[in-house]
Amino acid sequence: MSDKIIYLDNNATTRVDDKVLESMLPYLKEEYANPSSMYDFAKKSSDAIKEARVKVRDFVNAENEKEIIFTSCGSESANTGIRGVLGMHKDKRHIITTKVEHPCVLNVYKMLEKQGYKVDYIGVNSAGELDLEQLSEAINDDTALVSVMYANNETGVINPIEKISQIIKSKNQNTKFYVDAVQVAGKIPIDVQACGVDMLGISGHKFHAPKGVGVLYVNSKTIITPLIIGGHQERGKRAGTENVPYIVGIGTACERAQEFLRYEATEVKRLRDKLENGILKNIYNARLNTGVANRVPNTSNIGFEYVEGELILLHLSDKGICASSGSACTSGSLEPSHVLRAMNVPFTAIHGSIRFSLSKYTTEKDIDYVNSVMPGIIEKIRNLSPYQDELAELKRRKTL
Amino acid sequence: MSDKIIYLDNNATTRVDDKVLESMLPYLKEEYANPSSMYDFAKKSSDAIKEARVKVRDFVNAENEKEIIFTSCGSESANTGIRGVLGMHKDKRHIITTKVEHPCVLNVYKMLEKQGYKVDYIGVNSAGELDLEQLSEAINDDTALVSVMYANNETGVINPIEKISQIIKSKNQNTKFYVDAVQVAGKIPIDVQACGVDMLGISGHKFHAPKGVGVLYVNSKTIITPLIIGGHQERGKRAGTENVPYIVGIGTACERAQEFLRYEATEVKRLRDKLENGILKNIYNARLNTGVANRVPNTSNIGFEYVEGELILLHLSDKGICASSGSACTSGSLEPSHVLRAMNVPFTAIHGSIRFSLSKYTTEKDIDYVNSVMPGIIEKIRNLSPYQDELAELKRRKTL
Repeated sequence: MSDKIIYLDNNATTRVDDKVLESMLPYLKEEYANPSSMYDFAKKSSDAIKEARVKVRDFVNAENEKEIIFTSCGSESANTGIRGVLGMHKDKRHIITTKVEHPCVLNVYKMLEKQGYKVDYIGVNSAGELDLEQLSEAINDDTALVSVMYANNETGVINPIEKISQIIKSKNQNTKFYVDAVQVAGKIPIDVQACGVDMLGISGHKFHAPKGVGVLYVNSKTIITPLIIGGHQERGKRAGTENVPYIVGIGTACERAQEFLRYEATEVKRLRDKLENGILKNIYNARLNTGVANRVPNTSNIGFEYVEGELILLHLSDKGICASSGSACTSGSLEPSHVLRAMNVPFTAIHGSIRFSLSKYTTEKDIDYVNSVMPGIIEKIRNLSPYQDELAELKRRKTL
Repeated sequence: MSDKIIYLDNNATTRVDDKVLESMLPYLKEEYANPSSMYDFAKKSSDAIKEARVKVRDFVNAENEKEIIFTSCGSESANTGIRGVLGMHKDKRHIITTKVEHPCVLNVYKMLEKQGYKVDYIGVNSAGELDLEQLSEAINDDTALVSVMYANNETGVINPIEKISQIIKSKNQNTKFYVDAVQVAGKIPIDVQACGVDMLGISGHKFHAPKGVGVLYVNSKTIITPLIIGGHQERGKRAGTENVPYIVGIGTACERAQEFLRYEATEVKRLRDKLENGILKNIYNARLNTGVANRVPNTSNIGFEYVEGELILLHLSDKGICASSGSACTSGSLEPSHVLRAMNVPFTAIHGSIRFSLSKYTTEKDIDYVNSVMPGIIEKIRNLSPYQDELAELKRRKTL
């Protein structure tokens, strides 16, 4: 195994930004008061939460910081938002989501389906783009909620959230709209007001805050029941002593992410494109599993036809390169990705699909190294493939 | 306001142990991999979780580390355990708890009551001790669950958990037993097997781990539905990317707490008793709100008759002394403590009751200082009291 780590799995988790950690440390040391306490000593920790709330408000452009609820992760945000809003609208029994959501949304919908909800799962085309017509047709007077992810974790494909909100509200203005924005925070700007979303979830560890803190935005017109019941914290919407250090951390991460949005859109995208073009040019059985447009700037999902993705990952890991075959939340499963299946990625590529996801810490040298070793790795694995005839045919066609 | 902080509110939260923070830092820095990832780089973070799980297993003396579920706080542990076990036993509609539970249990029970559960709330005597006869009589064939806190957060009174478990199981061996052990972790030994509990919750920040991590123990004979639904983490019992740094932290905190149990039982108790005796001896309108026996070693709840507790806290805060009038989770409420009300603490003392809670970081100097300033503070407030006749009578009787 290589000593140097080349980390291209930033959609799974990210390195904590040094400035984020620095801002957290006082609250892991001397400023340890419970922010709910009444004495002077607690003022600094309760003020720190207030400041972080304002930073998050600005980051997603919420109208009011009271619309920001701190949670322990993106999954908790999704569970709280989705189940919380249905808890307030028990008369309606129809809900809609997409076939390509993250498990923290999809598995909540499956549970709700078992509880008697009628669920429509909206499909995507071969580029991973949502079928907006199907969505529009699915919405009816009984539709309590639509959940659509802002960008897909495996492919990076961005959904047109503003347009989707318009479709939803034009069909039923009482239908609530939850957006899982975990994979866009820090990659493209988020504007909850412009996009017309009712609820939106983000996760700190996807944009250089630590694992274990999330945010749920709930606009002032939307009322939810809490998921974790107990004390009065987060205005009664989330019990439990506040994780002051991580709340401060996600506040700093929001500021930092805002500063780096331009860098993501230019430099991170340039490196992603360089990686992608290098692979597609030099490896004849490689194919892009999405279209090139309309993706977050850091993600590339590439299918290597007629080979096993797990084998590619093992060889990459040996060289210190971290990438993945899909969501870390579903890893360990032998099933091919539900996202790629929904896109009808051909069976020849679906088992050999790899997600590369970059960050601001990715360097040109990292990408050059990956581009230099990928052809050799894939060739080695191709030689083990039982599909030699098909590979030969593929090569012939590509070199025509 | 004083520069030096004398922190006697350790039942609200505690300072993070330096060794705990030290053990966490690598996972906030270079070891940032998602523990669910398959590459070599993730091995250190997934191993770190495994090690922490073993440490927590040993701390509560669970049979198997698979019985340990990491959560984001004590409230999440209680919500997951209580609602999760009822999710698996939907045929039974009777549940039992105590009148003096923490809001994270009590408010869950109130929600369940609204959902149609029949709930018995067991009372306590004037020393804060649970009415075991009432408990025994309440259990019937339809009783799905009993929840009893190990020690009360406001008074420190310890419930005889092993005996309670025997009562429950002798009346209905299928009734599940949840124990909120948040206020005993690090203060007295926990042994889930000897005590015969099915589920038990603890919170890191009450014993020198950070705020934002908890543990739910669920024995292998007890099945629960998850509260946070999504990925496969925590063997499907708690979705969300694992908070590796804090999980490592609570593991270290368990080891450290085990080492300090003897110190808690001797030195912390000695200082608590010194504080308590000093106040009771020197302040004629002070009364102990509990009996002296059967309490965790760090907690003292003292009622100052005919004066306002909030005023005492303000004067203490001015001198840099942190104490509280009850749970931080209910602070801001003007209602007198539900715990002291359940104990029938006389109205003359209930509004003037203060909880002092010490830790291993409390020094002799801290206690001497508090003992030196308390009489002056109370005298100043007594002079503002509208109950001058009653105070004079109290003084006369005490000095007889």
